Amino acid sequence: MWFTSDNAGPAHPAMLEAISAANDGYCGSYGADPISARVEAQVREIFEAPNAKVFLAATGSAVNAIALGALCPPWGTVFCHTNAHVEEDECGAPEFYTNGAKLTLVPGDHGKMDPEALRRTIAHTGRGGVHNVQRGAVTLTNVTELGGVYSAAEAAGIGAAAAEFGLPLHMDGARFANALAASGATPAEMSWKAGVDILSLGASKNGAMAAEAIVLFEPEALHARMGGDKAWEIELRRKRGGHLFSKMRYVSAQMDAWLKDGLWLQLASQANARAAALAEGLRGANGVEFLHPVDANMLFISAPRGAHKRAQAAGAHYYMWPFDQSLEGPEDEMLSCRLVCNWATTERDVEDLARLFGG
Amino acid sequence: MWFTSDNAGPAHPAMLEAISAANDGYCGSYGADPISARVEAQVREIFEAPNAKVFLAATGSAVNAIALGALCPPWGTVFCHTNAHVEEDECGAPEFYTNGAKLTLVPGDHGKMDPEALRRTIAHTGRGGVHNVQRGAVTLTNVTELGGVYSAAEAAGIGAAAAEFGLPLHMDGARFANALAASGATPAEMSWKAGVDILSLGASKNGAMAAEAIVLFEPEALHARMGGDKAWEIELRRKRGGHLFSKMRYVSAQMDAWLKDGLWLQLASQANARAAALAEGLRGANGVEFLHPVDANMLFISAPRGAHKRAQAAGAHYYMWPFDQSLEGPEDEMLSCRLVCNWATTERDVEDLARLFGG
Amino acid sequence: MWFTSDNAGPAHPAMLEAISAANDGYCGSYGADPISARVEAQVREIFEAPNAKVFLAATGSAVNAIALGALCPPWGTVFCHTNAHVEEDECGAPEFYTNGAKLTLVPGDHGKMDPEALRRTIAHTGRGGVHNVQRGAVTLTNVTELGGVYSAAEAAGIGAAAAEFGLPLHMDGARFANALAASGATPAEMSWKAGVDILSLGASKNGAMAAEAIVLFEPEALHARMGGDKAWEIELRRKRGGHLFSKMRYVSAQMDAWLKDGLWLQLASQANARAAALAEGLRGANGVEFLHPVDANMLFISAPRGAHKRAQAAGAHYYMWPFDQSLEGPEDEMLSCRLVCNWATTERDVEDLARLFGG
Amino acid sequence: MWFTSDNAGPAHPAMLEAISAANDGYCGSYGADPISARVEAQVREIFEAPNAKVFLAATGSAVNAIALGALCPPWGTVFCHTNAHVEEDECGAPEFYTNGAKLTLVPGDHGKMDPEALRRTIAHTGRGGVHNVQRGAVTLTNVTELGGVYSAAEAAGIGAAAAEFGLPLHMDGARFANALAASGATPAEMSWKAGVDILSLGASKNGAMAAEAIVLFEPEALHARMGGDKAWEIELRRKRGGHLFSKMRYVSAQMDAWLKDGLWLQLASQANARAAALAEGLRGANGVEFLHPVDANMLFISAPRGAHKRAQAAGAHYYMWPFDQSLEGPEDEMLSCRLVCNWATTERDVEDLARLFGG
Repeated sequence: MWFTSDNAGPAHPAMLEAISAANDGYCGSYGADPISARVEAQVREIFEAPNAKVFLAATGSAVNAIALGALCPPWGTVFCHTNAHVEEDECGAPEFYTNGAKLTLVPGDHGKMDPEALRRTIAHTGRGGVHNVQRGAVTLTNVTELGGVYSAAEAAGIGAAAAEFGLPLHMDGARFANALAASGATPAEMSWKAGVDILSLGASKNGAMAAEAIVLFEPEALHARMGGDKAWEIELRRKRGGHLFSKMRYVSAQMDAWLKDGLWLQLASQANARAAALAEGLRGANGVEFLHPVDANMLFISAPRGAHKRAQAAGAHYYMWPFDQSLEGPEDEMLSCRLVCNWATTERDVEDLARLFGG
Repeated sequence: MWFTSDNAGPAHPAMLEAISAANDGYCGSYGADPISARVEAQVREIFEAPNAKVFLAATGSAVNAIALGALCPPWGTVFCHTNAHVEEDECGAPEFYTNGAKLTLVPGDHGKMDPEALRRTIAHTGRGGVHNVQRGAVTLTNVTELGGVYSAAEAAGIGAAAAEFGLPLHMDGARFANALAASGATPAEMSWKAGVDILSLGASKNGAMAAEAIVLFEPEALHARMGGDKAWEIELRRKRGGHLFSKMRYVSAQMDAWLKDGLWLQLASQANARAAALAEGLRGANGVEFLHPVDANMLFISAPRGAHKRAQAAGAHYYMWPFDQSLEGPEDEMLSCRLVCNWATTERDVEDLARLFGG
Repeated sequence: MWFTSDNAGPAHPAMLEAISAANDGYCGSYGADPISARVEAQVREIFEAPNAKVFLAATGSAVNAIALGALCPPWGTVFCHTNAHVEEDECGAPEFYTNGAKLTLVPGDHGKMDPEALRRTIAHTGRGGVHNVQRGAVTLTNVTELGGVYSAAEAAGIGAAAAEFGLPLHMDGARFANALAASGATPAEMSWKAGVDILSLGASKNGAMAAEAIVLFEPEALHARMGGDKAWEIELRRKRGGHLFSKMRYVSAQMDAWLKDGLWLQLASQANARAAALAEGLRGANGVEFLHPVDANMLFISAPRGAHKRAQAAGAHYYMWPFDQSLEGPEDEMLSCRLVCNWATTERDVEDLARLFGG
Repeated sequence: MWFTSDNAGPAHPAMLEAISAANDGYCGSYGADPISARVEAQVREIFEAPNAKVFLAATGSAVNAIALGALCPPWGTVFCHTNAHVEEDECGAPEFYTNGAKLTLVPGDHGKMDPEALRRTIAHTGRGGVHNVQRGAVTLTNVTELGGVYSAAEAAGIGAAAAEFGLPLHMDGARFANALAASGATPAEMSWKAGVDILSLGASKNGAMAAEAIVLFEPEALHARMGGDKAWEIELRRKRGGHLFSKMRYVSAQMDAWLKDGLWLQLASQANARAAALAEGLRGANGVEFLHPVDANMLFISAPRGAHKRAQAAGAHYYMWPFDQSLEGPEDEMLSCRLVCNWATTERDVEDLARLFGG
C-alpha cells in the first residue's frame, strides 16, 4: 500500500499508448509537431480560451518557476501561502527563475490564502518606495499543499484581491484536475474567470509520466497590462532553463491523451473518491483525528504512534508530516502524517490501510 | 527523408519497452527506485569508474548548464569552442545556471578547440587580478557541433591544457556514443582518462525519447580539488532548476535500456555508418563540396542552389547552415547545409538523398 | 530640528580634514595606498584581531549584501529578524548578491532575534533534503532597526545558536559604534568573541560621509570551515558589484579618521546621550508612549495626532513609522513615529522637540 | 611621475570645496536634497535635454552595469568592442547586473567598433530564434580603452547601426569630457543626437573623488520603445545593487562643482594637452613607437626594455600593457605600455618622462 504521494504510482496505460502512437517516423523538433498543436487546440477548447498559448515542460517546479519568472521582476515579491509548494518544496526554483525575487507569505486555513490577509500583506509591501522590494505577483495553489480546495468563488476572491492592486495572478495547478473534480467548477471558472493569468496545469501527479503545461490565457491582454510580450518571454525562459524538449512529441502525447475525452477528470475523480472512502474508513478508527478537511485526494491525520507502527510494519508506505517524527517513543503519543491517493489507488488499498489504523 | 537533426527521428523500440516494464506498480519518487540505481551501476561498470555518481535529467541544455554551474563560479569564465552548443544553442542556459559567468571562445578546426589556442586564451584571462573575470572551467564537445570527433588522445590534449591551469574539465557528450563509435576509444579513455571531471552523457539524440546523464567521475577527489561537495551541489542545482523528476523511473528506464548490452554503441555505429554512406554517395555528386570531415553522423556540405531546390522539392528535410540562406537566387550559387543521420536512417533514405543531389 | 535619520545630518569635520589631507599627490588605485593599509591596521588593533581583513565600500546595503553573498549559497536561506534592514530596506540586495537565496524571518522583541525562536526556525529548515532551501547563514543587526541593543552576551547567544547548526554568522553593524557605546562591550566582545564571522562596520550613520567596512576576522579559519577562500571571494564580489573604488583613499581616509583616537565611540556616545535626554524629556509629555526601550540613539514613540501636527508645523522633521499614517484625522488618535539622534544633534534640538510634544 | 591611470592623481580642489560647502546642517537623504536637484538641472541644460533624468552613483562599473541591466534582458547580448571596459575590466559586473546576459565582441581599430562589423555581428545574432541569445543592446566607449575618440559623426554611425536593428544604445563615458575636448562636439551631439539612450557620465577620472552619473535622456520615449519604465527600473536597480547613497549630497556636490562653469571640460582639455605634449616629446625618442593615435589623454607606446628599465628606475609609474611583460630580458626587446595623463599632470612630469625615454 503506497500513500506517499500521487507521484509514486504508475502512469495510466493511455499514456504509454499515446507515446507508442507518437513514435511514428519523423517530425519537427522542439514542439513543431502535430501532437503539440493538438494539445494547444484541446486546451483552448476545454478552457473556453481561444487565445490561450500552451508551453509544455516536464516538472511542476519548472512550470511554476518559469511562470513566476515571467510575472515577477527580480526586485518584486510573490505573494503565496505559507505552505505553498513554491515556498517549501522547490529548493528556491522561484528565486532562481525570477533572478532573486522574494516570496512573501500569507496565512490561511488548510493551505488557502485568506483574501483579507492577502490584501493586508500586499498593502503592507512596498510602502517605502525604492527601499523596498516591490509588489510583484500573486500565486495560489489548487489543490493546496494541505489538501484544501478553493472553490471557484474562493479562487475568484483571491483574483479580486490581486486585481485591486494591479498584480498578475498565477495558479499552481499541479493537482488542478483534482480541484475541478472536487469543486465541480469548469476549467474556465477555476482559472481565467477567477482572474488567473497563467496556470500551471499538471498531469504528472494524475496519470502522466512527466507532463506539465504553462497556460497563458490572454497573451495580448497581458502584454498590454505588463508592458512585455510574456508569451515570447516564456519561450525564452523555458529554453534558457533547459526545459525545451527536442523530442517534444513524447511530452505532448501524454498531455494530449490525458486531456482527451475527459480522462484527466475521470482519473482525478477516482483519486478523490478513494480519499473520501479512506476518510470514511478512518473516521471510525481509534484515535485518528483529521487535521484538515479531505477536499480532494489528500488526507492529513494524526494517530497514535502505535497505529503508525502497526501500519508501517504491515507495509503501508506514507510520509510522516512533518518528516522528522520518530516511530520510537510512547505508543499513545499522537503523530501526524499525510496520506495521498492517486488514480491507481484501489478499494482494497483503502480498506487495508483503514483496517491497519483500526478503522 | 529527414536529415534535420538526430532528434527528429523516432525513439528506439527498446525505450518504449523499458518504459512499459517500468510502469509496474509503486516505487520511490525522485530517483529512489531500483531502475535509477541500476543506471548508476551500469555507468560505473561501463566507464570503469566505481566512484561515479550519476544524475539524470531530460535535456542536453539542462545537464550542460547544471554541470557548468557546479564547475564555474559567477565571476569565472568557461572556455569553449566558438561554435559550441553552450555558446550558440542554449539561449544563455550556462550564463543562467552559473549566475552570470562568461563564455570565452577558443578557435579550432571542425569544432575542435586547438589546444595551443586554448592555452593562450586561458593564459590571457585573469591577468588583471580582481578586475577581470577569472579562469573558471573548460568544456569540449564530442562529437563537435561541426561533426568533428576528438580522438581520445586529442581529448586528453585538451585535458592536459586544462590541468596545467588547474581548471576542471567538462565534456558535452550529447553525441558521446557517436564519438566512441567513430574513434574506437573506450568510455573511460574518452572521459576521465582524458581528464574529464564531469560528462554530459546524452541518449536523446541516439534512440531515447528524453534522457541525459550528468556523470561525476570522482566526487571526493573533485570535492578536495574545488573545495565544495559538487555531488550534493549538483543535486541542489538540478532540483532548483526544476530538473528533478518525481517519476524518475521513466527517465531511468530509458537510460538503462540504452546502455544495456551495448545498444547505445550499436545505434551510434549505425548512424555513423549511414553518414559515411551518404558521404560516399555525395562525393560523386555534381558540385557538392565537403566543409568538414565526416567523422561521425553529421555532414556539412555546400552544393549549388539548384541541387538544394530539387532535393527539398522532392521532400528532403534538412537545415540550411546557417539558417538564413534563401532558396531564391541564382541556381549555381553555392549554399551550405547540415545533414544529420540518426539510428533510424535507412539505406534507402541515404540513397534517395544522394540521388537528389546528383550522386 | 531633524530627527529623520542619522544620515540626514552633516559629516564630522574630521572627515573633511582627512579627505583634504589624503588629497596629496599620487598614490596607488583600488586600495593600494597607505591610508587603506592604515585602516586595516587600526581595525586589527581595535578589534584585537590580528588576522582580520578589511574591505571598504560606501553603503550599508553594499557591505551587507556582499558579506551575505559570501556566506550563503544561492540555494540557502539567511536567518534574520522580521524587521531586519536586509529584509525590509534594501530592495532585495541580499537576494541579488546571493544570486537568489531566501531570507527566513525570526521574531523577537525590539528587533532582536529570540535565540530559541532562531533555533526552532533553523531546525525547521531543510528537513526535506534536496527539496528544500538549505540552511545558509545567520545575520543579526546591532543596534537593531527598532533601536534595541544586543548586549555582548545576547549577541553571543545568537552566535551559539548559529554555531550549533554550523552556520556562519554575520552582523549588520550600521550602528555598531552606538551598540558599543550603549552596551559597554569591547569591539572584540561584540563581534568575533560573540561568534561573528563577518561584520559590516558602518561609519556613514555616525559622522562619515560614506564609508563602510566588511571585516572578516579569521580568513583562514573561515576558509577551512566553508571550503572556499572567502577573502578573495569578497574582493571579487565587491568588484563585480561595482563597489571597488578606484580612488579608494577618499573612502579610507574617512574610516581612518573615524576610528582614530576613539572618535567613532565619542560620536556614538554623544548621539546616544542625546537620545536618552530626549527620552527623558518626552517621558513627561502628554500622551507620549514608548514603543521600545531607548537603548541607543533611536526612539519609537506614539503620540496624539495633535502633538505630531504641532511638532511638524513648528519645523520638526521625522518619519511617521510606518510611513503611511496621515496627519489628517482626529486630534487624539495615537500615531507612531521614529526619532533618531545623530552625533550632531544638539541639546537645544532635544529640548525644542520635547517641548513641542509637551514635555 | 605617475602615468598609471587618471585615477591615481588627486581630486581637484573645487571638489573639496564643494563637499565642505555641502556639509552644512541637515537635508533630505537619498538624493532628496537641493544639490542633487541642481545636478539634474545642470545636466539638462548642458546636454540640451530638458527631459533627462540623472541618477548618481560612485563608480564607473556601477553606472555601466546598472544602465546595461536596464537595457538588456537576461537572455540578451550586449554588443561591445573586444577591448571594452565592460568586457575586460569589471569582473563580470554587466553579467551580474543583467542577470546573466552575454557580451558579444565587435572588432575595430583603436577600441572603436567598426560600424559594418557591428552590423554583421548583430545580424549574425539570434537567427535561430528561441535557441539563441537574443539581440539586446549596443554599448560604445568614448574615449575608448585604447585612447581613441569617436567623433560625433562616428558615434552617430554606431547609433545608426543600433537603430537599424531597433536596439537601445548606451555610451560608457568614463572619459566623456576628454572625448568632448578632443572632438569639439557638444555634449548633445556626442550623446542623444548620436542616438545614445543612456550615458554613463564619469567625473571620477577627471577631477572628482568618486562621482558618476547615469543620464537617461528621454525617459518617456524609451519607456514607449522598450515597454517598461526604465527610469523607475534604474532607481530600483541602483538601490538593489547597493549604490543609492544615503548622504547623496556629497556625491552630488562633486558632480555639481565639476559641471559648473565648464570646469569638467577645462580639466579634460588640460589632460589631453599634456598627453599631446608627451606624444610630441616621445616622438623624438629612440625606438619609441605609437600603437594607437593619441586622440585624448592616453598613450599606448612600445619602447625598448632598456628604456622602460631606466624610466621606472627613475621613478616613473605606469602600467605595462598587457600587465605581464617582464622587465627581465634583452635590453632592446620592445615592450608596450600605457601612459595616462590627468588634469593634474604637469608640464614638468611630461618633460621628465619624455627625457627618460630619450625624447
